[in-house]
Parts: sequence; C-alpha cells; structure tokens
Amino acid sequence: MRVGELSKRSGVPIPTIKYYLREGLLPAGAATAANQADYGDEHLRRLLLIRALIDVGGVSVASAREVVTALGTYADDPLELLGAAQSAVTPRHRPDRETPEWQAAKQRVLDLIAARGWLVYPLSPSIDLVADALTAAASLGATELFDNLGQYADSAASLAAAEVRTVLERPDPAARMELVVLGTVLGEALFSALRQLAHQHESARQIGIPEAPPQKNPGIAQ
Amino acid sequence: MRVGELSKRSGVPIPTIKYYLREGLLPAGAATAANQADYGDEHLRRLLLIRALIDVGGVSVASAREVVTALGTYADDPLELLGAAQSAVTPRHRPDRETPEWQAAKQRVLDLIAARGWLVYPLSPSIDLVADALTAAASLGATELFDNLGQYADSAASLAAAEVRTVLERPDPAARMELVVLGTVLGEALFSALRQLAHQHESARQIGIPEAPPQKNPGIAQ
Repeated sequence: MRVGELSKRSGVPIPTIKYYLREGLLPAGAATAANQADYGDEHLRRLLLIRALIDVGGVSVASAREVVTALGTYADDPLELLGAAQSAVTPRHRPDRETPEWQAAKQRVLDLIAARGWLVYPLSPSIDLVADALTAAASLGATELFDNLGQYADSAASLAAAEVRTVLERPDPAARMELVVLGTVLGEALFSALRQLAHQHESARQIGIPEAPPQKNPGIAQ
Repeated sequence: MRVGELSKRSGVPIPTIKYYLREGLLPAGAATAANQADYGDEHLRRLLLIRALIDVGGVSVASAREVVTALGTYADDPLELLGAAQSAVTPRHRPDRETPEWQAAKQRVLDLIAARGWLVYPLSPSIDLVADALTAAASLGATELFDNLGQYADSAASLAAAEVRTVLERPDPAARMELVVLGTVLGEALFSALRQLAHQHESARQIGIPEAPPQKNPGIAQ
C-alpha cells in the first residue's frame, strides 16, 4: 500500500509516519518510484505497536525505538526483551543512591526477594527502583505507606504469574515476543488507570461522597 | 538557612533550586539582603517532595508544579487533590477515541465499574485510560492479555483499600494530603518495579533459567 493508505488504516498522520521512518522506528518500504514506496501489513502492524507504546504506554519516541529494536535483536531471548521493555517504561533520572538510608532500603528489597525465592538478577535496575520509592517515602516521613511491602509483592506476583502464562500460551515465538512488550507496557498503563479508579472509589467510600461534585465532573456513577 | 545549606541538606544542586524558584515549584525564601534569602524547613520538605515526584515518580517538572499547586489549592478536598496527583502520572497523548472499538472497550470498563459498585466520576479520565489500553491490545490482536480484567481490578482494589486506610490514619489534614500525593506517585513507581521483578521471576520459572546469564548481569539471585 502507499503511504496515504498506511496513514488512513493506522490513523497515524503522514508527517508522523515520515518522522518514524527517519528516526528508524519504522523500516523503509519497498521503493516503487522516485519518492514513492510500497508498505505491507508488517508496516501497519509496527505502526500500531509504536502508537500503543507512545500514546497508551506513555513511552518516549526514543524508548519506543529501543523496544522495537529489541524486538528484532532478541527475537529468541525473552528475558533480554523483557529487560528492554521494562527499561522503556522506567523514568531516567536517578536519585542519590550513596546514602545509608538507600542502602538499607535496598537490603529490605533483597530480603523480600530472598524470602520469596524470586529468581531475579541481583543487579536488576528494578531492585534499585523499589529502593528509590522506599527511600523517597522515608525521606518525607511517610514510611507507613510501604509498611506492608508484602501486599504489593503479592499483587505483583499474582498478576505476573497470569501474564507470563498468557504469553506462553502463544505457540508462535515471534507473536509471543510481541506479547511480552505489550503486556509490560499496556499492562502497566491498564493497571495504573484501574488503581486510580479504585482510589477514587475507596476515597469516596472511606471519606464519604462530597455533597456537590465539582463542576467539571457532572455526577457520580452508580 | 541559606540556599547553600538548603542545597546541602536536600542534595539538590543550587542551580536546580533556583530553577524551581523561577518556575514556581518552590516558594521564595524571606529576603535578608540583596540577592540573599533565608529558607526554612518547609522549603527543605517541599524540595524533597519535588525530587520524589520527579526522580522516583518520573513526573515532569510541569506536572510536579501542578501537584504542588494542587496541594495548596485543594488543602481540604482530598478527591480533587487525588485527581491532580493522578493526572500528573498520566501520559498526555491521546489515541483515537471515536472508533466503535474504543466505545465498546469503554462500555466494558463501565460495566466492570457498575458490577463492582465502584464510586467513581463517570467522566473520570482514568476510565478512558483503561479503554485506551484495552483498545490498543485489541488492535494488535492481543485481547487475551486482558481477558481477565477482573484480576487486575481485584489487585487494584485491595491495594487501594489499604492505601486509603493508611492515609486516613493520619490525624493532621495537611500531612494527610501530602500522603495522598506520595501514595499515588510513589506507590505507582514501587508497584511498577515490583511487577518487573515478578515478571523476571515468573519468566525464569515458567520458561526456565538460561544456562549462562547475559554478560551485563553477572548472576541469578537466590
């Protein structure tokens, strides 16, 4: 198909498609004439994947490129691909990790991992990210937020077990790898939004519903 | 304290503090002389909060400003403050929501909310975000990822119930409001990182551990 048809079927504007081509997120089409190229279903699919990562997952263009590159590079190494997808949804700045408070928080995470027998790389950046959140809460006197770290770990473990099972049900390895990426990025976006709804519900339930809802929100469901 | 002491105690470089002052994230100190100001513990605390939002929560500077502004504006309206904190951790781009597929996904979310009796605003952006994730997965033929939407809702509900309970245990309303913000942003960062660890564990467990771990990861814990 021509680029106009690709744009129409994907809902992505032509200038954006050209930008993705220049930036290497989308492979070039087959040249058919000067300034003309033919695109296939694999381009359409790749475009939908890029838009899912960027629009729904909140991933940057640079991180989306890393993920699609990883999809090609680690076509038969699910653990490496998982690392690339996880890194794409992870903030880039890093707080100070040289403090004794941070080291103690990290030890708490390592103890949790050991107690549960979780099979993870000891140098995994995710361990440091948990320690970052614990340290930030402690520095603001909010340690009670994560007193019950085990409950977060329980929820994460039961969701992850189901998600990995779903991925392994796919017989085709290439399709399976795409599901790893989608499960990581879309699963995080979906859970984050459901958690927001659950917070609204629990706040309304435990605090009580305000008599008149704010003007921009015309009513309370249910 | 002087700005140098504020920088030392917060770990935030002086140019960054000046940037936050210019951008309105940090209130001005009390002027003591030309080009000199005195800062108090409330400035230190605000700086730690800003760094927690940006470094650990991955929130942009603009969104962090919205959150600290909301902390002042909605000092006695926890539901409005919750909305501001939630919006800060939400990606800005929006996929196409005019399609029948998206409308069907949204209906599925509304049905879930109704079935559970969740008290949420029917116009809440979080409802649309869940529908975004469902639609993106469906457009890539990955509907099986979210076949079990109820399991995600269960996990979100049990975490949110505990989190709101923790917040309400604080007697001081101002301290309570800060906990709403920290719980939303840090709780999301913490859960996301734990979910990544759980994915690594479940992948290793269900697929099997590779014989030689990749070079950049020197070993498998536990």
